[in-house]
Amino acid sequence: MTELMAIVLAAGEGTRMKSAHPKVLHKVGGRPIAGHVLAAAREAGAGKVAMITGPGHDAVRKAMAAIDPEVAFFEQTERKGTAHAASMARPAFAEAKGYVAVVYGDHPLLRGADFSRVTERLDAGLDVAILGFEPKDPTGYGRFITDGEKLLAIREHKDASEREREIGLCNACILAFRAEVFTSLIDKVGTDNAQGEYYLTDLVELANAAGHNVGYAVAPEDNVMGVNDRAQLARAEAVFQSVRREDFMAAGVTLHDPASVYFSFDTEIAADVEIEPNVVFGPGVKVESGAVIHAFSHIEGAHIGPNVNVGPFARLRPGAELGEGAKVGNFVEVKNADIGQGAKVSHLTYIGDAEIGAGANIGAGTVTCNYDGYNKARTIIGEHAFIGSNSALVAPVEVGDGAYVASGSVITEPVPTDALGIGRARQINKPGYGKALNARFKAIKDQK
Amino acid sequence: MTELMAIVLAAGEGTRMKSAHPKVLHKVGGRPIAGHVLAAAREAGAGKVAMITGPGHDAVRKAMAAIDPEVAFFEQTERKGTAHAASMARPAFAEAKGYVAVVYGDHPLLRGADFSRVTERLDAGLDVAILGFEPKDPTGYGRFITDGEKLLAIREHKDASEREREIGLCNACILAFRAEVFTSLIDKVGTDNAQGEYYLTDLVELANAAGHNVGYAVAPEDNVMGVNDRAQLARAEAVFQSVRREDFMAAGVTLHDPASVYFSFDTEIAADVEIEPNVVFGPGVKVESGAVIHAFSHIEGAHIGPNVNVGPFARLRPGAELGEGAKVGNFVEVKNADIGQGAKVSHLTYIGDAEIGAGANIGAGTVTCNYDGYNKARTIIGEHAFIGSNSALVAPVEVGDGAYVASGSVITEPVPTDALGIGRARQINKPGYGKALNARFKAIKDQK
Amino acid sequence: MTELMAIVLAAGEGTRMKSAHPKVLHKVGGRPIAGHVLAAAREAGAGKVAMITGPGHDAVRKAMAAIDPEVAFFEQTERKGTAHAASMARPAFAEAKGYVAVVYGDHPLLRGADFSRVTERLDAGLDVAILGFEPKDPTGYGRFITDGEKLLAIREHKDASEREREIGLCNACILAFRAEVFTSLIDKVGTDNAQGEYYLTDLVELANAAGHNVGYAVAPEDNVMGVNDRAQLARAEAVFQSVRREDFMAAGVTLHDPASVYFSFDTEIAADVEIEPNVVFGPGVKVESGAVIHAFSHIEGAHIGPNVNVGPFARLRPGAELGEGAKVGNFVEVKNADIGQGAKVSHLTYIGDAEIGAGANIGAGTVTCNYDGYNKARTIIGEHAFIGSNSALVAPVEVGDGAYVASGSVITEPVPTDALGIGRARQINKPGYGKALNARFKAIKDQK
Repeated sequence: MTELMAIVLAAGEGTRMKSAHPKVLHKVGGRPIAGHVLAAAREAGAGKVAMITGPGHDAVRKAMAAIDPEVAFFEQTERKGTAHAASMARPAFAEAKGYVAVVYGDHPLLRGADFSRVTERLDAGLDVAILGFEPKDPTGYGRFITDGEKLLAIREHKDASEREREIGLCNACILAFRAEVFTSLIDKVGTDNAQGEYYLTDLVELANAAGHNVGYAVAPEDNVMGVNDRAQLARAEAVFQSVRREDFMAAGVTLHDPASVYFSFDTEIAADVEIEPNVVFGPGVKVESGAVIHAFSHIEGAHIGPNVNVGPFARLRPGAELGEGAKVGNFVEVKNADIGQGAKVSHLTYIGDAEIGAGANIGAGTVTCNYDGYNKARTIIGEHAFIGSNSALVAPVEVGDGAYVASGSVITEPVPTDALGIGRARQINKPGYGKALNARFKAIKDQK
Repeated sequence: MTELMAIVLAAGEGTRMKSAHPKVLHKVGGRPIAGHVLAAAREAGAGKVAMITGPGHDAVRKAMAAIDPEVAFFEQTERKGTAHAASMARPAFAEAKGYVAVVYGDHPLLRGADFSRVTERLDAGLDVAILGFEPKDPTGYGRFITDGEKLLAIREHKDASEREREIGLCNACILAFRAEVFTSLIDKVGTDNAQGEYYLTDLVELANAAGHNVGYAVAPEDNVMGVNDRAQLARAEAVFQSVRREDFMAAGVTLHDPASVYFSFDTEIAADVEIEPNVVFGPGVKVESGAVIHAFSHIEGAHIGPNVNVGPFARLRPGAELGEGAKVGNFVEVKNADIGQGAKVSHLTYIGDAEIGAGANIGAGTVTCNYDGYNKARTIIGEHAFIGSNSALVAPVEVGDGAYVASGSVITEPVPTDALGIGRARQINKPGYGKALNARFKAIKDQK
Repeated sequence: MTELMAIVLAAGEGTRMKSAHPKVLHKVGGRPIAGHVLAAAREAGAGKVAMITGPGHDAVRKAMAAIDPEVAFFEQTERKGTAHAASMARPAFAEAKGYVAVVYGDHPLLRGADFSRVTERLDAGLDVAILGFEPKDPTGYGRFITDGEKLLAIREHKDASEREREIGLCNACILAFRAEVFTSLIDKVGTDNAQGEYYLTDLVELANAAGHNVGYAVAPEDNVMGVNDRAQLARAEAVFQSVRREDFMAAGVTLHDPASVYFSFDTEIAADVEIEPNVVFGPGVKVESGAVIHAFSHIEGAHIGPNVNVGPFARLRPGAELGEGAKVGNFVEVKNADIGQGAKVSHLTYIGDAEIGAGANIGAGTVTCNYDGYNKARTIIGEHAFIGSNSALVAPVEVGDGAYVASGSVITEPVPTDALGIGRARQINKPGYGKALNARFKAIKDQK
């Protein structure tokens, strides 16, 4: 495969987002917009990736480095157009071999296959191949001026004549070049246009003038949707989700109401998983076969084993590991904890920084007290242990295999294997005091 | 009314579902697909119902017997086509009188009225009446070869000519016969077709050849949607829900956002019930007039009395009985329990296996400890009792009328009528210890 | 601006709603239908507003007076038509100057601009201006009989000829008049029509006959949707929500799935707020910039400060005030309470009638016991206080700055600044008792 370098243009401020954050950091499917573009470039086989960021956009660099540590960043300090932006990556592309693809960083639905559409055209002999699409409404997009399969020029909407504006085939978001064609032409772009900017799209006419073969490929509109405002962000999210839902159903996952289940970019779900309406999967979730996710569950960074029962109203946070046949029920939060095979945490419980042994039963209202205001500590519960309802387990603490904690206990010391731990006061009854209290409280109310 | 026997074909594996479970067990509106077909047949007056199941499909028999104990099951051990499948029911249809209707078991949206469409044609003098429909896309369906009102043949898609494939009227899912016509012809079906199978649809040509009157009726496409994969399952669910939502609104139920409320096949809701967005009704729910169901409620097997207030974030499980004017609020689970008239369980509570008296008030964080790891036991709370917050009631236990349980108590013994039950330690304060603890925990953190 | 008086017709029973409540009290966007009409009239500058209510509709008067205390109410005891209804307001309009606009009270999507459409026509010289629209399906609506810009008559559907029924321009819901034209004509309306009622729309012909200039303006169909049944109520709600969602996104709010977020008429949300799917905003909510509202949150009457983190599964009730950077996490209810800057209430907690100091940390399972069955009392928690998990704070009670409450405590007395408050029993372990209990409970089960 020919070597491919990608230059991702991510310097825009995105003012129409009306946000204090750079546009490309807004998320689709739980991943920043530009992160999707990076992933698509890598999926297409890009070895070297450069990203152009805007002035002061350290947050972009940080977020992108976390997604793809090999990316080289270049700052565009002045906003002088897309060709100027791409030229910032000169140290990276100066010596590039093979192909150079310049891609807009605000297209979260791009896939590796979209890069391939144009690199395959280069493979087939073209010197320049531009990705186009046929938008339902072409207003605002650069139009492709073609002659058969040749692409003669891209006319920016603002510079287009009335007749050119009738063209339906438009510039999408990837411009791919033989490396030497790109490096030889990038500095020749001028500013003779309505905006007075260096347009990357001018490379098409320059390449034709230099006698190169320039062509194009066409992508589906859904893949090349750019995001400029929050409504477009929501639409991109909707398309992203729609594709995931169809894919999961095709793979044998039951979605009662597909439109009410939200996936992240990296969600993994096996066949014969059943998902009720209203479930949110944040990043980092894997669900194995036979699991049932009931309605109103919010899951991120969790591994849900085979035949596990989750929800309704469950919240699984990063580090939740649910063993085969385990159950996490309603109003239960699990964080950084292993729930053993067949263990049950059925209701109203917080399990954080803990290990729950196989077959253990955690009563309603149990809390692992894992935090002292400064430090986190672990709770270990043995196999087939029984934690009575409304107990507080003050970590670090350990309850042994087969041990029993009495309801309403505060457990601060280890409970040995097979022991009973009890930490609660004895009940006393005061005859008639209930009636007296009622009378007193009522009198107070009546006085008000 | 003429006697009607139904033969439900439910032997398919449903490989496109990519499931370890037989297709007809997947659910729509909380009921297995084939269960809907059984119910529709009974609704249409079918007295005798036979179901053909696949080899090893004991789970289908079990689930169907639970829905309709009178069904007679017959196994089709080899997959030799639909006519072969139907013939498995010979012991049931051999002596049949009146009409025999063979119906595909994977059509969850069928209604009694769809059976009547064809039996009415038999009533009107036909010997054979087949249910057809006009699908938006007829690809894959058997085409009706007609001559005016006569149905001459059904041509399976694979066996149809180009011209026959242009026919829009297709075979739906019910083939109805005068019993003697069915029994006289079923064994005459051959395997002279592209698949080499015994086609049930060949009965049409055979009946014509024998001089019988063969006709058809037409059903709306939504009623006769077959389910072959998870996407179709989701679409069937969507149609099912859409019909329910329209019906409930027409009957005077307020749905803030109909598309976000999910009903089961047997949900009953009275007029002037108000339902906020995002509510899931599992099977077995009845809601009476004036009740308000707030958002994010998950309800199954529950009876909600008049003017009851449920949710948001309420979970009602089977056996929850809520008396008039009761309230079950946020993060509350109720299972197998009566909540008396006007009683309030407002927050963060688990009530299981219990009776709560009229006018009682259950404080936040209360848990009925109904399970010892092996057995369930009951909690009885009297009328106008007051259970202080964060109390644990260890069943079996009883709190009398007008009694008062102090906050944070563990109640293991009965609290008599009008008494105060208290089971908690006395508070002590250690001056300066808070500061010292903070310093110590901070030091530990700093050391790390 | 010319003085404007509005007469709101709200006397209908709304039998198609199948409700025990008058139609105009059903809500859209959290506000009664007729309340939207009042607000639109005021927005258009109406100084005097009269509302016609039906017999016994005290609930309407009460609800409307709460929304707009200046409204003058008039009862229509007999149902004799819309002109008769409007005439009930005679004491209010007898002396009216400027313009009188009669408006139907069951149009919840009306806006001030819709009144302006017709009052601007009066400003431009007309004597009578009627609001029309072009419905997708005009069946049932009064048709505009026009001659160019002149409106000659409004023909009620029932009285219209076949040819008149082909007219697409129909009567919407506002009839505006120069005051003296209205007062001079209202009593001249007769009952010569199919229903035998006094039609308000007859004023058009009467005005023309008297030589007045009668014209019309046209509103978008979505603005002038009337509500007659629950399906229309749901559609009105959907349009209301759709407009809000678009508006918020345009203003810089991120909605992951706009269709799953529900706003009220008065919701205020700043730019750069992020809202996950499935969030319900009841009335009275204001959210400041940088806040994140996670999925499954139910919020009403709350003020959410900058950079606050809410949910998932949070319930904020009226009087919840969340300071900058505060966190209210899963399965937490907050009611009538201030949560200080940076304070954290992360899980499974009820905070009611309380003040939580800046930087305080409230452990999981904490409950403020604010209710004794009769009276509410307050809990005060100091800055940087730490409340251990599963604690009950029995109000009235105060925990000082920097104080520490041990997990599982019941706090009934004040905890001084920097002190440790502890109210729990000491743990004891009974070796082997866990095993014994298990054996005993198992034996009981086996006996059953």
